[in-house]
Amino acid sequence: MLVNAYGAHAGDKPLEPLRITRRTPGAHDVQIDIAYCGICHSDLHQVRAEWPGTRFPCVPGHEIVGRVSAVGAQVSGFKAGDLVGIGCIVDSCKRCPECEEGLENYCDRLVGTYNGPTPDEPGWTFGGYSQKIVVHERYVLRIRHPEEQLAAVAPLLCAGITTYSPLRHWNAGPGKKVGVAGIGGLGHMGIKLAHAMGAHVVAFTTSNSKRETAKALGADEVVVSANADEMAAHVKSFDLILDTVAAPHNLDAFLTLLKRDGTLTLVGVPSTPHPSPGVFNLIFKRRAIAGSLIGGIPETQEMLDFCAERGIVADIELIRADQINTAYERMLNSDVKYRFVIDIASLAA
Amino acid sequence: MLVNAYGAHAGDKPLEPLRITRRTPGAHDVQIDIAYCGICHSDLHQVRAEWPGTRFPCVPGHEIVGRVSAVGAQVSGFKAGDLVGIGCIVDSCKRCPECEEGLENYCDRLVGTYNGPTPDEPGWTFGGYSQKIVVHERYVLRIRHPEEQLAAVAPLLCAGITTYSPLRHWNAGPGKKVGVAGIGGLGHMGIKLAHAMGAHVVAFTTSNSKRETAKALGADEVVVSANADEMAAHVKSFDLILDTVAAPHNLDAFLTLLKRDGTLTLVGVPSTPHPSPGVFNLIFKRRAIAGSLIGGIPETQEMLDFCAERGIVADIELIRADQINTAYERMLNSDVKYRFVIDIASLAA
Repeated sequence: MLVNAYGAHAGDKPLEPLRITRRTPGAHDVQIDIAYCGICHSDLHQVRAEWPGTRFPCVPGHEIVGRVSAVGAQVSGFKAGDLVGIGCIVDSCKRCPECEEGLENYCDRLVGTYNGPTPDEPGWTFGGYSQKIVVHERYVLRIRHPEEQLAAVAPLLCAGITTYSPLRHWNAGPGKKVGVAGIGGLGHMGIKLAHAMGAHVVAFTTSNSKRETAKALGADEVVVSANADEMAAHVKSFDLILDTVAAPHNLDAFLTLLKRDGTLTLVGVPSTPHPSPGVFNLIFKRRAIAGSLIGGIPETQEMLDFCAERGIVADIELIRADQINTAYERMLNSDVKYRFVIDIASLAA
Repeated sequence: MLVNAYGAHAGDKPLEPLRITRRTPGAHDVQIDIAYCGICHSDLHQVRAEWPGTRFPCVPGHEIVGRVSAVGAQVSGFKAGDLVGIGCIVDSCKRCPECEEGLENYCDRLVGTYNGPTPDEPGWTFGGYSQKIVVHERYVLRIRHPEEQLAAVAPLLCAGITTYSPLRHWNAGPGKKVGVAGIGGLGHMGIKLAHAMGAHVVAFTTSNSKRETAKALGADEVVVSANADEMAAHVKSFDLILDTVAAPHNLDAFLTLLKRDGTLTLVGVPSTPHPSPGVFNLIFKRRAIAGSLIGGIPETQEMLDFCAERGIVADIELIRADQINTAYERMLNSDVKYRFVIDIASLAA
């Protein structure tokens, strides 16, 4: 089945209209008519070949929401008309300890929603900047938000779960002091989710201008990280700091704010290494620096339900497909509050 | 009370005989006639002023064992003649959450056994390279090993607890695969203790010549870390790697050996930073790099009892006080298996 899509033929080429093939649904497949797809910063990295391994043409997009339009004979959990989502994962080995625990995100054979290996033509996956997608039912998420929120639900599939999972894993909740560094696509969700979990939330920003918006998102306090006095007031007080900043930066500035047994969790990957963190800061309070990668399928469903119950969605700016290249440039200038979402109806023309 | 000691008058001077004053025991104090004191690498760093803040004269030593010779009026837990030990801590605030949890090692007002602030003359503490020491009962450990093992018990007070505490904290035990990097004063204790806890123990060494000795210490396997094939055979398999190597080195080589949710715990502080570890290696398996500092007083007692029940002591070379300067040079050349211990009787002359 041929569908309209938007993608790039090379790392130095802009994205443009393409036609791609989707497989006929197999017994366990769900076919989805995509309504909206969020734009993640990693879309830009990959489609511009800034990370190794991009195969072209590349159709990005892993924050996908839409409606089921067909299901395979063995599919029992979904039917035509259901509101569903697809995140960063469309396949995994289904047999390793990680898959058995529902932590498909840590499976060694994880297949990304785009640019991942697949037996489908042409040999790699195409993402959500397209009209339809066909995915094994295991990786399909149910959306219980009202339909009018659907566009703003899309970013939950990556930005939402990428922040929800570490907040849960490191026990954000009542009585815990949680920092969120960076107020962008990931960070704004981190603030909303940590607040909804009941933690005392401190947002870190480099920009004084983001104070009020961070509070509006749910931050109890806002700290301008370049202000040494503001930082010093929080020394040794955090249980967890979720660091969403992908640019190389001084991790020690955050490590020293952790209390004993606190964790600095990185979810952004810098293009060049961070300055090496100080070992004394780790040893003297038994602190840790950790990483976290999206989340597993059961936890993604848990996050979507958590958000649906509380009316939590992303703050978005809806665009047409022909605005994607401009949106990328604006994203590089942090000129978005806080996530672009593509109206896939604009691909029909 | 004046006692004989061994220390240095400046960072660039050798250690030499000194006379120091010990306070008369207060109501809660225990006075100890020191029998043996281990030599820790941090003794050398501090007495040579390689770390900031050393006050001179400096009398090092925080691996102290001996016999109680007097107790204050309020002391009920110890009496003259008891075999006891003193580790790295001789005071703390006794009121903070860390002290209340018996984690005095993480108290912000921890007083080190030497070079720590004290109201005693001359204003900083003197360590175990001396005939007697007077310490508040809270920081005195009971030794249940047979007396003939006493010299080899001394290193448990620092090298033992520094490895025991992270092994316990990160749940080394049956069914867990634990790596120990570096086979020196700390590492040789880490191997013995992880083995005694029932973990599968892999020792990492840079020296092929240490294979057999590492196995004799209790390692189930030995990996030469410079051998890429040997390292590759252990990729994604460790629950915990205890890194005792104080020299700057490539942490990624160990991070990639951790399974999901594994931790690389550093207990050595390099004089210059390690190369910055890769964020991808943290994110892709939710791995962590952590630090750990000695251990609290209750856990140190637990460790001593654990070792006494199993007959575990350090491998030591006993020296006279007038051999300390030579021992330091040999320690710098890794020419000791695995800990020097000073026979404090040699100070009597």
